[in-house]
Amino acid sequence: MHDNDISRRRLLGTVGAAGATGLVLGAAGGAATYAGASGETPTALTSVGATGIAFHGEHQAGITTPLQACGHLIAFDLAPGAGRREAAALMRRWSALASELMAGRAAGDGDTGVALDAGPSSLTVTFGFGRTFFDRAALVAQRPPELDPLPAFSSDQLDAKRSNGDLWVQIGANDALVAFHALRAIQKAAGDAVRVRWQMNGFNRSPGATGKPMTARNLMGQLDGTRNPKPSEADFDKRIFVPSETSGTKYDWLAGGSYAVVRRIRMLLDDWEQLSLKKQELVIGRRKSDGAPLTGGTETTELALEETRPDGKLVIPDNAHARISAPEQNGGAAMLRRPFSFHDGIGADGTPDAGLLFICWQADPLRGFVPVQRKLDRGDALSAFIRHEASGLFAVPGGARAGEYVGQRLLES
Amino acid sequence: MHDNDISRRRLLGTVGAAGATGLVLGAAGGAATYAGASGETPTALTSVGATGIAFHGEHQAGITTPLQACGHLIAFDLAPGAGRREAAALMRRWSALASELMAGRAAGDGDTGVALDAGPSSLTVTFGFGRTFFDRAALVAQRPPELDPLPAFSSDQLDAKRSNGDLWVQIGANDALVAFHALRAIQKAAGDAVRVRWQMNGFNRSPGATGKPMTARNLMGQLDGTRNPKPSEADFDKRIFVPSETSGTKYDWLAGGSYAVVRRIRMLLDDWEQLSLKKQELVIGRRKSDGAPLTGGTETTELALEETRPDGKLVIPDNAHARISAPEQNGGAAMLRRPFSFHDGIGADGTPDAGLLFICWQADPLRGFVPVQRKLDRGDALSAFIRHEASGLFAVPGGARAGEYVGQRLLES
Repeated sequence: MHDNDISRRRLLGTVGAAGATGLVLGAAGGAATYAGASGETPTALTSVGATGIAFHGEHQAGITTPLQACGHLIAFDLAPGAGRREAAALMRRWSALASELMAGRAAGDGDTGVALDAGPSSLTVTFGFGRTFFDRAALVAQRPPELDPLPAFSSDQLDAKRSNGDLWVQIGANDALVAFHALRAIQKAAGDAVRVRWQMNGFNRSPGATGKPMTARNLMGQLDGTRNPKPSEADFDKRIFVPSETSGTKYDWLAGGSYAVVRRIRMLLDDWEQLSLKKQELVIGRRKSDGAPLTGGTETTELALEETRPDGKLVIPDNAHARISAPEQNGGAAMLRRPFSFHDGIGADGTPDAGLLFICWQADPLRGFVPVQRKLDRGDALSAFIRHEASGLFAVPGGARAGEYVGQRLLES
Repeated sequence: MHDNDISRRRLLGTVGAAGATGLVLGAAGGAATYAGASGETPTALTSVGATGIAFHGEHQAGITTPLQACGHLIAFDLAPGAGRREAAALMRRWSALASELMAGRAAGDGDTGVALDAGPSSLTVTFGFGRTFFDRAALVAQRPPELDPLPAFSSDQLDAKRSNGDLWVQIGANDALVAFHALRAIQKAAGDAVRVRWQMNGFNRSPGATGKPMTARNLMGQLDGTRNPKPSEADFDKRIFVPSETSGTKYDWLAGGSYAVVRRIRMLLDDWEQLSLKKQELVIGRRKSDGAPLTGGTETTELALEETRPDGKLVIPDNAHARISAPEQNGGAAMLRRPFSFHDGIGADGTPDAGLLFICWQADPLRGFVPVQRKLDRGDALSAFIRHEASGLFAVPGGARAGEYVGQRLLES
């Protein structure tokens, strides 16, 4: 790539240098405009393109970052013969690359040009390590017990080839070409150290499609994420991020990190869409239109779980999804759900190959995802309309400090 | 769906009633805001969500409509036993549905709710008829010769199962959930009259990702569509739309219509990305950064096709894509290219299953697509990096007038 081309994408602002997690610069920040190429007038970007997410910080980006319109998940396995040394070199390359891309800059000499003209568009690149990584990189002593395999659930129909993996990368952006550009750059920078294990694409609503930011809808039409913990809540960090008290132990590399559970959840939409609206709402326990509990109020009103109808039956049925997954029914188990929808056309069985790339974040999967999924697996009325087709569990290190790469405290421990 | 839910999505404005082709109402038009449900304050949508495209008009929407961020293509075949009568009923249902959806309204009683909260988001739904439709609907006398099968090209590797079809629907929107919602609604409304033949998903840049509207980039990183005819050009209508002089003939149902050539063009990105930038630019004949000809200037500067280098060689090589596809090298053949990129993950061969859903529009495919593709097929340096994997040719009737459905003049002739 010519110097010209790189300078075209170089932001005048200092996106990425702020250090705070998920700090969003952009049109509102006033700094993110292009340095024009020779003789060209700089073009002001709108906030969609101009918004950049900081790469460096206490936590990696892509966890508390607002949902993005486009996402790619890709898992890699270390190549035969590659170990800790190659993994360290790779994480160093990938971190440098992610830092450049998230600031709206080019991927270096071999840049494909696919992201030219666009700003960083809220690009995030997030890295995680799967259980098998620690075997292959001879780091078993540093592997936390939280990475033990998830229990089997009776409704799972998991495809091992699309599950787990040594390394996991989550890419999100508000522009499809910016996201694709990052995916290709990450793959190219991988070199010979790793091989692609699986890759999935997803999406969310476009910025500006709704009048205000709101809970996302999934492809069943439900508001999805109503009960998500909020960063403003006092115990948010404790629930989502691995505490820094781990410092000084063999797991200190995980301080400020989190665990991601990734599930490809196929929605059986042909069946679901045959239910009447009323029946769908009984399955969920909430109104479809606005997410309010069937016991009334608004989306944020608490479920009146004991309320009965004149005939004595519960208004929110025993097996309603919202009842079974309610944090107060699960010892306060909390996870931050941050999914993408997926739609890969028509499946081999003739039904839509569509659903949710469920991604949830928690300080401990055994106190977040697992207990809730165990209950859902047994008694959720929604189970008849979904199928878990792939699964992954990844330890996601804290954010890299300036001059550091993601995972450095593990790989150079 | 409750009346409440429908009214939530009902626009106060009169999107769709304007009658002019591709007239875009929206924030700029001032009228597109929501009627709030009981007690709810109406929410003003931003222009991304609020923009609605008129369904009725001289031409169907989705031809001169600006590129949308998300697209679905779906082809259907008439079910055994279904003929002209069933097709007419289907086109009546589909037209009524498209008119509602494009105005941001619900799909009726069985609405899935997936588009709730969002505005119309520039949704378009465009309908076409393939060659085989006229056999199955006993309308062979009304089939124009322009629907004769496209010639075979030596570089084609076409999958018949993903090619052609009796009926073709193109859906585009600037929000992925709005587009998916429309796709499911179109499938549901199809009922028993037709069966899905194939379905493909695509995308373009998000609104606002770049500082100004500009020529789209494809997944090779090239600006793609530089030489597209512009609606402001005097002969634009004549080149793109079937003239109304056909009125009074047996093809008068096509007046104001167009022909769409659809090609799934796989890009061999692993090979392409191994070329240096300089070699890529020689393949295309234009600079990657800004689309200017290698002979200088800006994106819109004419190619200096005869210019030579000091060593006597042509600056824009003999086999450069831009030279071979230049309208002035093809007797002025013109087509309006309006594609979506696609990315369906990793293909069976381990390479990215990505490329271009090439869609071009012209008044006559034998004077638009065919002569250009013939030349490209023989001598284009780009051919080594692409593969045509599926193909379709569809006659797209003119737009429905108020009270009319798309294709009515054919189906009730």
